[in-house]
Amino acid sequence: MISIVIIGAGNVAQHFYSAFKTSNNLRVIQWYNRSITSIECFKNEVFITNDIKNLKDADLYLLAISDDAISNLSKKLPFENRLIAHTSGAVNIHDMDKKNHRAVFYPLQTFSTSRAIDFSEVPICIEVLDKSHLQIFKTIAEELGSTHYKINSDQRKALHLSAVFINNFANQLYRIAHEISDEKSLNFDILKPLILETAKKVQELSPYQAQTGPAKRNDKKTIKNHLKLLDNEQHKKIYKLLTEAIQHTHRF
Amino acid sequence: MISIVIIGAGNVAQHFYSAFKTSNNLRVIQWYNRSITSIECFKNEVFITNDIKNLKDADLYLLAISDDAISNLSKKLPFENRLIAHTSGAVNIHDMDKKNHRAVFYPLQTFSTSRAIDFSEVPICIEVLDKSHLQIFKTIAEELGSTHYKINSDQRKALHLSAVFINNFANQLYRIAHEISDEKSLNFDILKPLILETAKKVQELSPYQAQTGPAKRNDKKTIKNHLKLLDNEQHKKIYKLLTEAIQHTHRF
Repeated sequence: MISIVIIGAGNVAQHFYSAFKTSNNLRVIQWYNRSITSIECFKNEVFITNDIKNLKDADLYLLAISDDAISNLSKKLPFENRLIAHTSGAVNIHDMDKKNHRAVFYPLQTFSTSRAIDFSEVPICIEVLDKSHLQIFKTIAEELGSTHYKINSDQRKALHLSAVFINNFANQLYRIAHEISDEKSLNFDILKPLILETAKKVQELSPYQAQTGPAKRNDKKTIKNHLKLLDNEQHKKIYKLLTEAIQHTHRF
Repeated sequence: MISIVIIGAGNVAQHFYSAFKTSNNLRVIQWYNRSITSIECFKNEVFITNDIKNLKDADLYLLAISDDAISNLSKKLPFENRLIAHTSGAVNIHDMDKKNHRAVFYPLQTFSTSRAIDFSEVPICIEVLDKSHLQIFKTIAEELGSTHYKINSDQRKALHLSAVFINNFANQLYRIAHEISDEKSLNFDILKPLILETAKKVQELSPYQAQTGPAKRNDKKTIKNHLKLLDNEQHKKIYKLLTEAIQHTHRF
């Protein structure tokens, strides 16, 4: 049985809490948050606290808090030589106070309060400074049904950056399509299967192999017509830049 | 029973042919292609021809050929007053020769030879000039299990443009993520669940609601760090432009 104290109450903390509960070999023995109100509804299930001095003994303290808060909170912890891990893609492992054993347990997935998460679809990136701590994180990931990878800080930063491209930026392209179709009174539902198939395709093919369309074909007539259709200057810029990028990748 | 002659032998033609075969109420009575070799392997299943003068009588002639070829081929058809439909997102219905009854049967999906297509995931955009022809296309779409929408030429162009953003451009973002992660010897598999979840999320939430990340949060420190990590100038430009676009959408 692995005992865990969760620190933080955001999306990541909440999804981890729900997932840990489903395992018989993991036990959340306490949940800390700076403000007690956001975790008050769990007080019948788990010890909750907003007093950092009051943290219980545990095998692992999981810091699921905002990037900016990690370093400071790690200093405030009222104990030493225990195992702590943050869950951020961007924060260096060394940013945590070295008075404790430091690790990273970074779930590479997009979380939102309104959507349930299947942890078998959440790759976990593990980083430890002391190899002897690797096993506990592997066990936790396996208990959640997650695939896990040993990833160093440098690699983790590259993954976090990649995630911005494939999540935030791709989502913004969906948003632009939403705006374009809205203008012609089109139901966005028509585009949803294409969004899904585009993502499914690269589960099997590489993005290079999966590419199609006017930029890849160097179909100048269609590209010209599309640019004429776009009246939003920012959309035009994005169209041009990504068309250039595709042509660069496929060597025109 | 609806009899169909397929014209063309590209991805779209091939996928339609396979799908039509599964219905008892649709019958491909002939398959024409300029070059016979690409359809020769079907000669035991269907009449094949490369002679445009030799087309059989049918309820529908489906022109699944490249955009540039549609107008010309429609002129060469050796008959009048029959029903013809092209399958393109970008070509105006009036570009076809008016000697025949003209329509559009545009499948809004990405097709590739190497992936089977489930037509229940292919929305069909139907356009007709004469309302009396609407029903046959609805029937065909329903036989394939596809959702269908009545879409005019203007709307279809907007959908085709939107499709470039959500398919070609999103795929290029996956490609960039592939390049970034490759550079750090990371397995691209780690990123695949995030790609899929990003697409799944907007099946329920709007792209506006689904947005997260440093641009949306206006997290200047992370944005600065990401730009520092990017050494490819084109990737940097794309990062900046899409960050600006997200901030514009979410009003910073």
